[in-house]
Amino acid sequence: MSPDPIAIASDHGGFELKALLKEELAARGHAVIDLGSNDRDSVDYPDYAQALAQAIGAGKARRGILICGTGIGMSIAANRHPFLRAALVHDAFTARMARAHNDANVLVLGGRTIGPEIAKDCLAVFLDTAFEGGGRHARRVEKLSRLPASS
Amino acid sequence: MSPDPIAIASDHGGFELKALLKEELAARGHAVIDLGSNDRDSVDYPDYAQALAQAIGAGKARRGILICGTGIGMSIAANRHPFLRAALVHDAFTARMARAHNDANVLVLGGRTIGPEIAKDCLAVFLDTAFEGGGRHARRVEKLSRLPASS
Repeated sequence: MSPDPIAIASDHGGFELKALLKEELAARGHAVIDLGSNDRDSVDYPDYAQALAQAIGAGKARRGILICGTGIGMSIAANRHPFLRAALVHDAFTARMARAHNDANVLVLGGRTIGPEIAKDCLAVFLDTAFEGGGRHARRVEKLSRLPASS
Repeated sequence: MSPDPIAIASDHGGFELKALLKEELAARGHAVIDLGSNDRDSVDYPDYAQALAQAIGAGKARRGILICGTGIGMSIAANRHPFLRAALVHDAFTARMARAHNDANVLVLGGRTIGPEIAKDCLAVFLDTAFEGGGRHARRVEKLSRLPASS
């Protein structure tokens, strides 16, 4: 099975880390769908989260990566979409839990809060860890797809 | 101005930290709206995020706190709601950015990923830091309220 294409987007706070992670993805044989931004000019993170949501919603990629300064803005924006489970992680443990328990399909990183080697670690764990599935985790993930419930 | 009421909820992975943060909130004079869970029995984090969204949506509190094992599941669930900006943070810096740049109204913490003193630090910074406002941050936050855009 050849590696699946991975969509990636950032704002100006994640531009440099995006370039690094693109190299990592390419080295692992993934096609990379780079949705910008493409330089250090100040841009709005919701626009780039939206571009990634559209790419995944359209079936261009199954998984994605989002980066802003802290990852907080990107994680708020991406999780507005019921078909995305965007996990803001900061080390290998949280990356592993994001996949094993939450079946995250979007990895969110802070370009200004973690260093390059930690980010590479998070990426590798995100790509290589399977969802545990099973009763309780699958039930919770299924509930996520039905939020927001009318309140 | 008397402190505003704060809503708080957790799953079993955040039960102990919730108890600690309730003490902190009470010591600062906040009324606490505790939405459970109330023991260590395994429960589904989306149900508790939904309870908090309903409390804030109904105007019972302006701000809230969510805790699960890593905070990841809670942050996915809470951000399904366009009127919530739920920030998963892990230290004082990320807590400060969550308020200053993202105007977060929900603090999300990992009960199994950060220790009690770090969590207290995050809470204090979350409560005490104002949104910077200004052109670009306000524009981005406004965009968050309009997601998901039709894609």
